[in-house]
Amino acid sequence: MTRTMNFNPGPACLPLPVLEEAQAEFTNFAGTGMSVLEVSHRSPEYDQVHQETQALMKELLGVGDDYHVLFLGGGASTQFAMIPSNFLKQGMTADYVNTGSWSKKAIKEGQIIGEHAGAKVNVAGTGEVDGKFVHIPRQDELKLTDGAAYVHITSNNTIAGTQWHSFPEVGAPLIADMSSDILWRPFDAKKFAMIYAGAQKNLGPSGVTVVVLRADMLERAQGGLPTMWTYGTHVEKSSLYNTPPCFPIYIVGKVLKWLKGKGGLAAMEKENRNKAELLYSTMDKHGGFFTSPVEKEARSYMNVVFRLPSEDLEKKFIAEGKERNMNGLKGHRSVGGIRFSIYNAISYEWVKAVADYMEDFVKKNG
Amino acid sequence: MTRTMNFNPGPACLPLPVLEEAQAEFTNFAGTGMSVLEVSHRSPEYDQVHQETQALMKELLGVGDDYHVLFLGGGASTQFAMIPSNFLKQGMTADYVNTGSWSKKAIKEGQIIGEHAGAKVNVAGTGEVDGKFVHIPRQDELKLTDGAAYVHITSNNTIAGTQWHSFPEVGAPLIADMSSDILWRPFDAKKFAMIYAGAQKNLGPSGVTVVVLRADMLERAQGGLPTMWTYGTHVEKSSLYNTPPCFPIYIVGKVLKWLKGKGGLAAMEKENRNKAELLYSTMDKHGGFFTSPVEKEARSYMNVVFRLPSEDLEKKFIAEGKERNMNGLKGHRSVGGIRFSIYNAISYEWVKAVADYMEDFVKKNG
Repeated sequence: MTRTMNFNPGPACLPLPVLEEAQAEFTNFAGTGMSVLEVSHRSPEYDQVHQETQALMKELLGVGDDYHVLFLGGGASTQFAMIPSNFLKQGMTADYVNTGSWSKKAIKEGQIIGEHAGAKVNVAGTGEVDGKFVHIPRQDELKLTDGAAYVHITSNNTIAGTQWHSFPEVGAPLIADMSSDILWRPFDAKKFAMIYAGAQKNLGPSGVTVVVLRADMLERAQGGLPTMWTYGTHVEKSSLYNTPPCFPIYIVGKVLKWLKGKGGLAAMEKENRNKAELLYSTMDKHGGFFTSPVEKEARSYMNVVFRLPSEDLEKKFIAEGKERNMNGLKGHRSVGGIRFSIYNAISYEWVKAVADYMEDFVKKNG
Repeated sequence: MTRTMNFNPGPACLPLPVLEEAQAEFTNFAGTGMSVLEVSHRSPEYDQVHQETQALMKELLGVGDDYHVLFLGGGASTQFAMIPSNFLKQGMTADYVNTGSWSKKAIKEGQIIGEHAGAKVNVAGTGEVDGKFVHIPRQDELKLTDGAAYVHITSNNTIAGTQWHSFPEVGAPLIADMSSDILWRPFDAKKFAMIYAGAQKNLGPSGVTVVVLRADMLERAQGGLPTMWTYGTHVEKSSLYNTPPCFPIYIVGKVLKWLKGKGGLAAMEKENRNKAELLYSTMDKHGGFFTSPVEKEARSYMNVVFRLPSEDLEKKFIAEGKERNMNGLKGHRSVGGIRFSIYNAISYEWVKAVADYMEDFVKKNG
């Protein structure tokens, strides 16, 4: 069967070579005569995958042994609560920048934990203009707290289709939810005290969240928390305190190897820019027909969103896209419109097919 | 390659037909032209798997719509903290029965949460005799608290090799960690307010914990907790509040179908009893050579543990077992000895090979 062009926002398209490799060895992992689903998380064969994946993540991010790479369950949504539980202590304030739905969820958990802890959440900036998330705050718009416990941002906003293109300068530890754009390009990871990402966009399947934590953050952490909600537990046991989500981690490892094999983050950035710029230029060329709901300088290179002149035309665009074997074109129900999620695993070829389709569609319906 | 006889305690052996089916459709799930790793958790194709797996779990357990089936990340270890967070409220006492390492971990989290909440943990019974977990407490040994928030037990103890063969009568809501023996036989699930199990023994791969929660427990739950740590969140959204660990859930679904196809829990029990009784009878036949560290009436049908006359002989037994293609024979480092984990997916044929090996070994070394 032909492979469907999968533009879903996550779980999302994975590199075909990764899938084929996993399929080939599915019942016989590393010559063990067992599936990777069946081997012990304490076996040397699994342990090698675990350690290699941690090392590759550090290598691609360009961070050293002062950072820990953790593999945790519960999704990025669990991190929304773990971060304040660990780092937002009594009397402190945490700064959050609100750039959309996922930021709001992170803020909500900060507020819940803050209330228990006797600590505060300050919304230090917003991407909202007239009730819509179309903007990424500039440095001079941020109202940061002196001595904040941390500053939390969402680097890419899958629903709004906005993205931070340069990261803010802050005094406090900077924490970023990079679920939807981690490793899309080279960046200075050392700027961050913590980066986390649900795997199911740029890294692998759902079921594991990668957390990259600067070692000194452990000294700032709250004690007396439940064991699984304590970052220190997972650092100390290298994410093997309990049985980790082995299969998702194994796939992440293969995705990272694939990424490295493609030429690493610099090569990835080039391809990602080519992809997004092709769609944005097609959109702008037919600006009377395709309209971007977000500010030009805030446009995401991962989730390209646009509107058509009417909802009927949007429905038609989605339906005819499906006939062209394109899946996942519908914008999030909260904002409507069209969305193409073009993460690392999406080829330029597929994006070119989209651009061609857009041209055809405007010709027939414009 | 020959399939290795995998007696690991978890992650553990899975049914070969399940693995082969998943392998065959790995790059084209349900005719979508996408891998199951890539499809949206909101797609109709994934949703069908999700709902079918919930329904099958209820069917096999014989519970109705007054129970919710949840699929959560973070392992059973996360449940150790979620249970007291949700149900151990100020001024209350929770009863825990301590039958080994996993019970102790659950108790520890109860104590941590209890301390924050102003609530108590009562260890209502123990399986420890002279410092070793060799016993399962009888009903008359339990010191239960009137009006306890709940009573927590560990139905099978993978490390000690002990198992509850009849469940205690308690007034308070009964909660069981059944990670290592869920669905090994028919039982009265309605006796329980909550059952939970990390999938990686009898249900599937690591990365998902199945929680079966009686609906009325939600009324007893604490409010104001972080969203992901609130059972109500996952009940309300049917474990789709955030992206669930789709692939592990998908495999659990296939394992449950396989189990039903084998004749369900009654057939499973028969096979499991045959398997364990073959090993125990071989052991007892050579009682001077193979010795059981646990009380006869507490013996587990999932994890068969025994000692040999010396540690050198145990090493030899493990090494020669490996030559016979048997993997995972070593007892847990905390107790030593030999352990065969013979969960649902382990065939009688493999266990027969073990019994034959035991006979040969005693002939040569006894």
